[in-house]
Amino acid sequence: MHERAADALGARCHYQLIEVAGASRDELQLLLEGVRRLGFAGINVTFPYKEAVLDLLDDLSPGAKAIGAVNTVVVRDGRLTGHNTDTTGFARAVRQLVEASGRGPVAVIGTGGVGKAIAFALADLGVTEIRIFDTDRAKAEHLVSLLPAGQNVAIAASVEDALRGAVGVVNGTPVGMSPNKGTPVPDALLRSDLWVADAVYSPLWTPLLLAAKAKGAPVMTGRDLAIYQAADAFELFTGLKPSTVEMGIAFDAVMAKRYPATNAA
Amino acid sequence: MHERAADALGARCHYQLIEVAGASRDELQLLLEGVRRLGFAGINVTFPYKEAVLDLLDDLSPGAKAIGAVNTVVVRDGRLTGHNTDTTGFARAVRQLVEASGRGPVAVIGTGGVGKAIAFALADLGVTEIRIFDTDRAKAEHLVSLLPAGQNVAIAASVEDALRGAVGVVNGTPVGMSPNKGTPVPDALLRSDLWVADAVYSPLWTPLLLAAKAKGAPVMTGRDLAIYQAADAFELFTGLKPSTVEMGIAFDAVMAKRYPATNAA
Repeated sequence: MHERAADALGARCHYQLIEVAGASRDELQLLLEGVRRLGFAGINVTFPYKEAVLDLLDDLSPGAKAIGAVNTVVVRDGRLTGHNTDTTGFARAVRQLVEASGRGPVAVIGTGGVGKAIAFALADLGVTEIRIFDTDRAKAEHLVSLLPAGQNVAIAASVEDALRGAVGVVNGTPVGMSPNKGTPVPDALLRSDLWVADAVYSPLWTPLLLAAKAKGAPVMTGRDLAIYQAADAFELFTGLKPSTVEMGIAFDAVMAKRYPATNAA
Repeated sequence: MHERAADALGARCHYQLIEVAGASRDELQLLLEGVRRLGFAGINVTFPYKEAVLDLLDDLSPGAKAIGAVNTVVVRDGRLTGHNTDTTGFARAVRQLVEASGRGPVAVIGTGGVGKAIAFALADLGVTEIRIFDTDRAKAEHLVSLLPAGQNVAIAASVEDALRGAVGVVNGTPVGMSPNKGTPVPDALLRSDLWVADAVYSPLWTPLLLAAKAKGAPVMTGRDLAIYQAADAFELFTGLKPSTVEMGIAFDAVMAKRYPATNAA
């Protein structure tokens, strides 16, 4: 996505996968010291290091600091600054659904890294209430403690409870991610007036989204989050606004290779 | 050069300048630990770090070990191996001149990093004698101690002494490198039957080469060394044979930008 966006802008960009398995804190520090020195404009950080890198950076954006997680590190003048474009990207991706549904209550299922980013994005978009459900109640309570003080937020006792009166629901769990075939929301709870977004993008059409679509509900696949978090990171890395259309084409090409038969809606 | 060679092979390659000013040993180690971990196929090392990186690497090629200098580090399976393509590249570049002149005695002026690489290349090509001149005799003696035991080598007392009976001469000093306008060999010592090679490539046509050309001597500019050291490094990095024609086009484009008016022969 980054390389295609750069090509379209006439810029030369190289985006390199760096495999990091079971890295200790010292090992992460060595990696970041390398990133600082070796000409990188920045890096993306993914599971399971989004929290671990926090105190190895020089600065944090207000958003990354609030959520306590970083997916994007920008190198500028030898300083490393952490950002969270999972939050800003999801906010951009889901804005239309939130506004079209009058900023009514939205349920968030799952409070891991993705669920947290989603909840912060919804708070940024000014939804009237965020309903949080996680099978681990302590994690849900921790997320509530992180969200902005003015935000109306409730911990739900069940998915059903979370959805009562909600206008939208977002899956922030890995349920439905290949090879898992489950759904985090029982089909019976889906309605045509309940928009459904899924952060999972492998496959794009999760059992949850297929069921929601069958009920005639507005839906958003993980494609949009994947593209917009990358677009926001690209802009932070380069100072240039990338084409999300170009990034989408690159995303689709990778998905077509990886899941040749499973992405039809 | 690397990027153009890769493009011509249909490979995606990014070659990044890493500015390193006044690095301590610890700083060099941090850089190399980053290179080891961050997805690089390898790096080139240039002045003044070609000797300093030696004992920070895991392995050395026999050539790099013999000369005690590394200009190319290859990363493979997390291990860093040092090579010296200044030597192998110069050997490839100068082979024709050496063979056409019957492998007769060759004078090498200067015994810094470049001069050493040139002397080793000439030894590899089997010249009958290497005549070394450096204003610092101790450096010349050190180079003699490094060269293969079977190689016929002599330390000359002057440039004139070095050239007596020689069929070729190579400048390994920075004399003639812009903005310097000097020559390491007095014009009066040049002859039509004495080939002249210069490692300096900025400008390509140094006062030494212009004077040699005026005498009708066979000449080689620093362009060939610059291209072949890069070509050998490219092959070590990628396992692919690059086109030296493509690399030459890239080299010429950079030179045309950098020295728009000074490269005409």
